[in-house]
Amino acid sequence: MPEEVTPLPENGRCRVVIEGVTPEIDCGRYPAKRVVEEKLTVQADIFADGHDQVAALLLYRYQGEHQWHKVLMRPLGNDRWEADFTPSELGYYRFTIEGRIDHFLTWKKDLVKKYDSGQFLQIDLLIGAELIEAAAARAGADAERLLPFAGRLRDAPDDSSALAVAGEPELEQLMAIHYDPALVSRYGRELRVSVDRQQALFSAWYELFPRSVSPSEGGHGTFRDCEQLLPEIARMGFDVVYFPPIHPIGLTHRKGKNNSTRAEPGDPGSPWAIGAPEGGHKEIHPDLGTLDDFAHFIAAAAGYGLEVAMDIAFQASPDHPYVRHQPEWFRWRPDGTVQYAENPPKKYEDIIPFDFESAQWPEMWRELCDVFRFWIGQGVRIFRVDNPHTKAFGFWEWAIAEIKGDHPEVIFLAEAFTRPKVMYRLAKLGFSQSYTYFSWRNTPAEMEQYIQELTRGEVREFFRPNFWPNTPDILPEFLQYGGRPAFIIRFILAATLSASYGIYGPPFELFVNRAVPGKEEYLDSEKYEIRPWDWDDPRQMRQLIAAVNRLRRDNPALQNTWNVTFCQSDNDHILAYLKATEDRSNLLLVVVSFDPFHPQAGRIRLPLEALGLVPGHPFLVHDLLSGDNSIWHGDWNRVELSPADMPARILKLQPRLRREQDFDYFM
Amino acid sequence: MPEEVTPLPENGRCRVVIEGVTPEIDCGRYPAKRVVEEKLTVQADIFADGHDQVAALLLYRYQGEHQWHKVLMRPLGNDRWEADFTPSELGYYRFTIEGRIDHFLTWKKDLVKKYDSGQFLQIDLLIGAELIEAAAARAGADAERLLPFAGRLRDAPDDSSALAVAGEPELEQLMAIHYDPALVSRYGRELRVSVDRQQALFSAWYELFPRSVSPSEGGHGTFRDCEQLLPEIARMGFDVVYFPPIHPIGLTHRKGKNNSTRAEPGDPGSPWAIGAPEGGHKEIHPDLGTLDDFAHFIAAAAGYGLEVAMDIAFQASPDHPYVRHQPEWFRWRPDGTVQYAENPPKKYEDIIPFDFESAQWPEMWRELCDVFRFWIGQGVRIFRVDNPHTKAFGFWEWAIAEIKGDHPEVIFLAEAFTRPKVMYRLAKLGFSQSYTYFSWRNTPAEMEQYIQELTRGEVREFFRPNFWPNTPDILPEFLQYGGRPAFIIRFILAATLSASYGIYGPPFELFVNRAVPGKEEYLDSEKYEIRPWDWDDPRQMRQLIAAVNRLRRDNPALQNTWNVTFCQSDNDHILAYLKATEDRSNLLLVVVSFDPFHPQAGRIRLPLEALGLVPGHPFLVHDLLSGDNSIWHGDWNRVELSPADMPARILKLQPRLRREQDFDYFM
Repeated sequence: MPEEVTPLPENGRCRVVIEGVTPEIDCGRYPAKRVVEEKLTVQADIFADGHDQVAALLLYRYQGEHQWHKVLMRPLGNDRWEADFTPSELGYYRFTIEGRIDHFLTWKKDLVKKYDSGQFLQIDLLIGAELIEAAAARAGADAERLLPFAGRLRDAPDDSSALAVAGEPELEQLMAIHYDPALVSRYGRELRVSVDRQQALFSAWYELFPRSVSPSEGGHGTFRDCEQLLPEIARMGFDVVYFPPIHPIGLTHRKGKNNSTRAEPGDPGSPWAIGAPEGGHKEIHPDLGTLDDFAHFIAAAAGYGLEVAMDIAFQASPDHPYVRHQPEWFRWRPDGTVQYAENPPKKYEDIIPFDFESAQWPEMWRELCDVFRFWIGQGVRIFRVDNPHTKAFGFWEWAIAEIKGDHPEVIFLAEAFTRPKVMYRLAKLGFSQSYTYFSWRNTPAEMEQYIQELTRGEVREFFRPNFWPNTPDILPEFLQYGGRPAFIIRFILAATLSASYGIYGPPFELFVNRAVPGKEEYLDSEKYEIRPWDWDDPRQMRQLIAAVNRLRRDNPALQNTWNVTFCQSDNDHILAYLKATEDRSNLLLVVVSFDPFHPQAGRIRLPLEALGLVPGHPFLVHDLLSGDNSIWHGDWNRVELSPADMPARILKLQPRLRREQDFDYFM
Repeated sequence: MPEEVTPLPENGRCRVVIEGVTPEIDCGRYPAKRVVEEKLTVQADIFADGHDQVAALLLYRYQGEHQWHKVLMRPLGNDRWEADFTPSELGYYRFTIEGRIDHFLTWKKDLVKKYDSGQFLQIDLLIGAELIEAAAARAGADAERLLPFAGRLRDAPDDSSALAVAGEPELEQLMAIHYDPALVSRYGRELRVSVDRQQALFSAWYELFPRSVSPSEGGHGTFRDCEQLLPEIARMGFDVVYFPPIHPIGLTHRKGKNNSTRAEPGDPGSPWAIGAPEGGHKEIHPDLGTLDDFAHFIAAAAGYGLEVAMDIAFQASPDHPYVRHQPEWFRWRPDGTVQYAENPPKKYEDIIPFDFESAQWPEMWRELCDVFRFWIGQGVRIFRVDNPHTKAFGFWEWAIAEIKGDHPEVIFLAEAFTRPKVMYRLAKLGFSQSYTYFSWRNTPAEMEQYIQELTRGEVREFFRPNFWPNTPDILPEFLQYGGRPAFIIRFILAATLSASYGIYGPPFELFVNRAVPGKEEYLDSEKYEIRPWDWDDPRQMRQLIAAVNRLRRDNPALQNTWNVTFCQSDNDHILAYLKATEDRSNLLLVVVSFDPFHPQAGRIRLPLEALGLVPGHPFLVHDLLSGDNSIWHGDWNRVELSPADMPARILKLQPRLRREQDFDYFM
């Protein structure tokens, strides 16, 4: 007989197998994401050989904890099991699964079947007593509670009273606790869930260029000037004020107005061309103010319930101190010049990319990570990261873990408009939120398909969208041509489909739609010049923004991105979707016309039973924007939408109308 | 500044990431399966930050090899890459993936774009020369071939001749070999593919009870008797002769005819009630012959190109020597009796299951594994394993690995009719083939859906079906009521949809359809009595079986299970599917009516272009069973099927008919 070559497993007696665990991202390399108080539902395929009853526990523990919390899993059918837990703390939780044969339940189930078919039970009762006595031997103090059950089984006067003993809840409960640990199968991996604060999921962002807000004509705006706008931004209901980069701007190859390669005297340059003799990523542009002014602004914003988000763009102008002091972090050309960014035939001579293949990468990574630390030291907790997909993936995985190790409250938004797998990878690596393809989904069918991709399947576990109808880089064609109704449509879609969204203002609320011909670039873009905006212009949509943001705060159904269900519509221009809390106590129907030019009407089908609505009973529909009420009944109901008036409705469904029976004195 | 807590990666300069590798079963815990000369196609998502060109290699090596074989991967779009290799040896191969930035290709692509837009190239040519010189420094003897290219770039008289140098294939080839290994990313796991012999994928099985083949009336058949049937079984074109268990049968609680709990004197008992005073799993039932007779039978079968498959059923009769000598391998009841098998309220008192929770499990596992070794020693290489889903999963994983370590040619067929995840788990654990739900898929829509499940997606990588229209345990209702046409329908479906299939004969070819009322059990089942069959009965389907098995041998398209494409049919009773070799040199269309009672006709739609057929040109359709020819044209063509005659067709498509232009002298 040949020698055995395959090692025996450690304990071959453990018969339960566990596989197909979700969420498990890339075999557990990456954590799932949740925010505090957001439930994590774990599923797995759990089964054993033969016909025995299986029991399973979800185990979880918070970072630093050594003891597992245990949650009983419930079978869903077809060998699928489920349990959930709700993380309450920032940071990481680990979870895994244990499965075992439940010998007691197996015995009890078989006993009942044998009893029902009139079989002789005497031996089976003895077997049950032995099971209980074995559990008692493991049960410490509980032995005293267990042993009497064994005695009562042995001494039962007849089978039916034995069956009653076997069925007592206290016995089942004790047996479920004192199982034989030697026969438990543990899933082979510990998985993780990364827990962020709630703002990582639910927040409304307002982006503006601080340099454009000077009250004096032609002046350079300052942080102090920005403080004057805080009451209005807060009144609009935003949670986050986000500034493009606030660092000194390079002079060499500075861009002029409209991205001209030649800057005129007085042109302020692009804020993304970071670095000048005054400093780089840890300094503030002198015209905006001082570090103290910035700290003052953060504090003032906090007074209005607003947080400040910073833009971190890891690239340098040719004048950045890094280029002189850390030349080994950049590529140099044979003519002794530093390599600027290019995507041939395009050249970006005002931008020097870091060389992530530099032999000095550890020093460079540490310094770039330290940029985040520096601004965290100034009070910033939200970073919008510019073009993370042009920096090495490994850097982000390391840097985000490193920062969140000390500051789990920090939020990173990935501004990566690139191929889907790259965007998803960045999310897995640790970015809390991500820009999306929202801007380019302009029909109901496209939008529904995209939202399904984001909210169903594995993507939902690690990718949190942040929807932007516009950005300084993107004035979508739909906004260029659709006028005011287009802005309203895109705003309501963003604010109701994604719990996080943002606008670049004031151009958004002022319906600014002039683009560089043939492009999605703003004409006279604020990226290259100071653009004072008329904050008092009466033809703007700030009232609507404030109303919708108020609805977002008042309706928990709008504070979650995953709770969307699309409804059938008989008009291809109309998208209808339900947003509901898990208990359906907050139940909204959003109906949006995608046509900014013509009125559209259509019928919407509601899944009445799934909503807890009684078919045939009327229900109240309250329009949260207009204040109008309607009474609907049946599953198909009609909606009319007019671009001139309001191309969208946010409707609150009241599960049922009161009837005469509800009056106290009816009976 | 807080101390760093997150370790830096080993080499942060490697910018390419690799994820989403297929096939990767349960994070690489289980191997994919192939047979010798069956291609393994590997895909992965491979990408890097930024815009640089990526290159990737599939690495593979046979067990014991230390050097990787390397295959260049090709991009499929959307960051998906693919490569394949074809294993030639039995056993295991490992594979993984390497990715890297291809700096040379990036440079060359950019150079062309810059040239096309009229940019100044001088510095770029120097960069290219430096890239080549760096490669030359790694290139050993190839340096002499590389360096002149650098010189020619530096000294090029003009940009267009420099571009010509950059584009020379020899340069590209050398640069693809001599990349910088320090910048290569390796996928984090080595994955495996288990390679079986071709019979694991392609084989036709014939099951029979040897005890029923005695030429003398009422006699107990022997292996010597069975030898007389070998010419006929070979003439029918089978590859494998499979016997139910051939061991001594217990007397205690022996089952009588029709599963009666009371055996009459002379009742032979169920062959699955293994073990008697004469011995157990390593002994032969004395009435069948001796070990020498069995060896003689195996040799005789081999002379006809037939292999012998044994049934291994790990369970014991109460009389099995194990029960006496290894009592610790079984469960004992409080009354001192051994626990028989039961699934309450059913009792199987003639069957004692092993206790896989036994504290003596290592000894038991080794002994059970040794049962396989014993029969391998007698020349058996194919095992049909009875009810593997009622034995611990861990045992199978260990035992199959242990056996295949020494005997990679051994084939294990899992007879597990149970829930889908259990069946798939057994396949992952190492079973070469599996019984399926084929018997219970009785409409074209059901069958198509099931075949899609088996042949698309991950299941295809590890689960090889073996389709059985009947077994001693299963006489499906379709066969009970459908008469001769039903047998033909099920036979042709099994033999053409799955490269491996089997029948339980002679009842199958004799159209035996009498069942226990209301069940799928044979009446007067051979499991419980000796049933002599009339091998000379003229009303049987052996001619058709022989014809179809000949087609299976002559047509490589029928030797693969994964190459099926379903065709649209305008008659819901008709299923049509294409079977094709990868190069389409062998292209079959199988059309089957699922109606055993009435003639059915319908039109079938062929995907002409995908088949390399020219729309508008006629093509020849040859009926391989009847010998008839037809000429079809267009994508929809009509087929008529008659249950009285032949409810199925196996058609060979000739890509095109010759035309006048094909004659040598036409031009």
